[in-house]
Amino acid sequence: MEIGEVWKSLEKDLADVEACIITHLASKAPLIPEVGFHLLKGGGKRIRPLLLLLSARACGYRGNRHYLLAGIIEYIHTASLLHDDVVDEANMRRGQKSANRVWGNQASILVGDFLYSKALYLAVREHNQQIMDVLSEATTTMSEGEVMQLAHIGNVGITEEEYIEVITYKTAALISAACRLGTIIAGAPQEIRNAMTAFGMNIGIAFQLIDDALDYSAEERKLGKQVGKDLLEGKITLPLIHTLMKSGKEESQRLVRIFKNRRPKPEDVEFVFECIANDKGVEYTMEKTQGYIKKAKASLDCFEPSPAKNALLAVSDFIYKREL
Amino acid sequence: MEIGEVWKSLEKDLADVEACIITHLASKAPLIPEVGFHLLKGGGKRIRPLLLLLSARACGYRGNRHYLLAGIIEYIHTASLLHDDVVDEANMRRGQKSANRVWGNQASILVGDFLYSKALYLAVREHNQQIMDVLSEATTTMSEGEVMQLAHIGNVGITEEEYIEVITYKTAALISAACRLGTIIAGAPQEIRNAMTAFGMNIGIAFQLIDDALDYSAEERKLGKQVGKDLLEGKITLPLIHTLMKSGKEESQRLVRIFKNRRPKPEDVEFVFECIANDKGVEYTMEKTQGYIKKAKASLDCFEPSPAKNALLAVSDFIYKREL
Repeated sequence: MEIGEVWKSLEKDLADVEACIITHLASKAPLIPEVGFHLLKGGGKRIRPLLLLLSARACGYRGNRHYLLAGIIEYIHTASLLHDDVVDEANMRRGQKSANRVWGNQASILVGDFLYSKALYLAVREHNQQIMDVLSEATTTMSEGEVMQLAHIGNVGITEEEYIEVITYKTAALISAACRLGTIIAGAPQEIRNAMTAFGMNIGIAFQLIDDALDYSAEERKLGKQVGKDLLEGKITLPLIHTLMKSGKEESQRLVRIFKNRRPKPEDVEFVFECIANDKGVEYTMEKTQGYIKKAKASLDCFEPSPAKNALLAVSDFIYKREL
Repeated sequence: MEIGEVWKSLEKDLADVEACIITHLASKAPLIPEVGFHLLKGGGKRIRPLLLLLSARACGYRGNRHYLLAGIIEYIHTASLLHDDVVDEANMRRGQKSANRVWGNQASILVGDFLYSKALYLAVREHNQQIMDVLSEATTTMSEGEVMQLAHIGNVGITEEEYIEVITYKTAALISAACRLGTIIAGAPQEIRNAMTAFGMNIGIAFQLIDDALDYSAEERKLGKQVGKDLLEGKITLPLIHTLMKSGKEESQRLVRIFKNRRPKPEDVEFVFECIANDKGVEYTMEKTQGYIKKAKASLDCFEPSPAKNALLAVSDFIYKREL
């Protein structure tokens, strides 16, 4: 199954998710739908809702309550993007001006808070304890991951294990929760729930690894895409962690200086890219990604064959190619 | 009953609330307790926890689950302070440097997100649908109120009714929720729940009105306390709304210019204080406050006499004097 077929087969379902997303943005404060639409209409690929829908279907779910749940997950994700963009002082998001640039930090922070609250408000009204258990754990873990990442800014001593822990918290926890919610709403047995949760966790880690690899990809750079964002933000990601391990004393000392310093000069950026290319930091990260994708796919072994299962496998493969 | 006696009679209970607050700050990310302690230990008066405890007691509650709930409410309040201080670019909070000044906006935003999430995480684990209904509605309303306030920055055309709506959303909703949660945990009948909710709503509005009045108080100014913060932030509050209504064309035009302009000069600040003094904007606001406090106290008529009820009445009176 090709990824294009996956999107096509879920076109109608994703339209229902969009309808939920739009409906519940209504507020006494018109700024909320204004900022919300900007980001939510800004071309996100809805990977989390997609995974939730597929997870429910792979468990044989036939109802329609998963649309709202998928919308809730997207609200939480969008809230975190709004806050991330303030934290990172971002200028662009999904190919357009970021909300903090258009409406200012204040609106981004407060509308982000609204989306978080509204997501939990809607979830509470599903009257399902298990849903709330999963969602509230995921958002707490996610926010801890964000704080962990902040604390590691410029920390060139971060180990690969610590880095994997950070991305598990900040990215994989919510993706995994989306997958688990699909099984809960389908009333799947515990073993199936755990398998799908593991799938989401591994796919989530892979998702972030690819993101971090692409940020140092020479090919992306040649194509004129924005790269080196993590470097500018002082985020130490796997391509660099690997390179720091591999590099000689002199090289490593200069890398450390660059990352401790912030505001690197153009020749510093050039040097970082060169080091990562020489030490194959991107290739190493892609290899690790493959490992997580393999683990994710293996988690699905206990599922009966179905179009939804095939779609989940296709999504896994596609993450590696990543134009999601 | 004097307010001093109220605090004294609840000393042990509030210590139990503090213990909950401290315990649940623990995290894999040490920055979370660091920032959290700074604000939570920074001398807040715990008015929301106090009201929750008294509400539960006034309904005859004898258990100890209200301590955690009170801690949860304080987490939500603290999260909103962290975000507010970023939004307002505040330098001080509770007599010490604000968290955004010590750790930066990034930490304040992300630790605020953690406190919101953790509050709901803890609440979910109480396995009580009614608690979640109330909490999730309060946080959503509160965040809408914050956005409404932001949208009204510099809006000199805001009416008294619109202003009251904003403060009901941004301040009174959470205080009212704290009061309602006390009745829920006590298993009180619907009529009692609604009466206590109304008490909280009115006391909450009064609380914000006093805050806004003090910000233009000539006496506070003489005492060297910081005043005129709302003016600097472009927030149009009741003392000014009243003054704009009362003032002549010329005066009102200058006021409008000052508030539209932001960054007022010292002579502008002086002029605003003079106008508000002449048109009795503070007195008018205090009068309105009295009205809400009277309504709040009347809501308690259906409660049996008890020390907790007396304490709630004492808190109501004290809000008017307000050194909480």
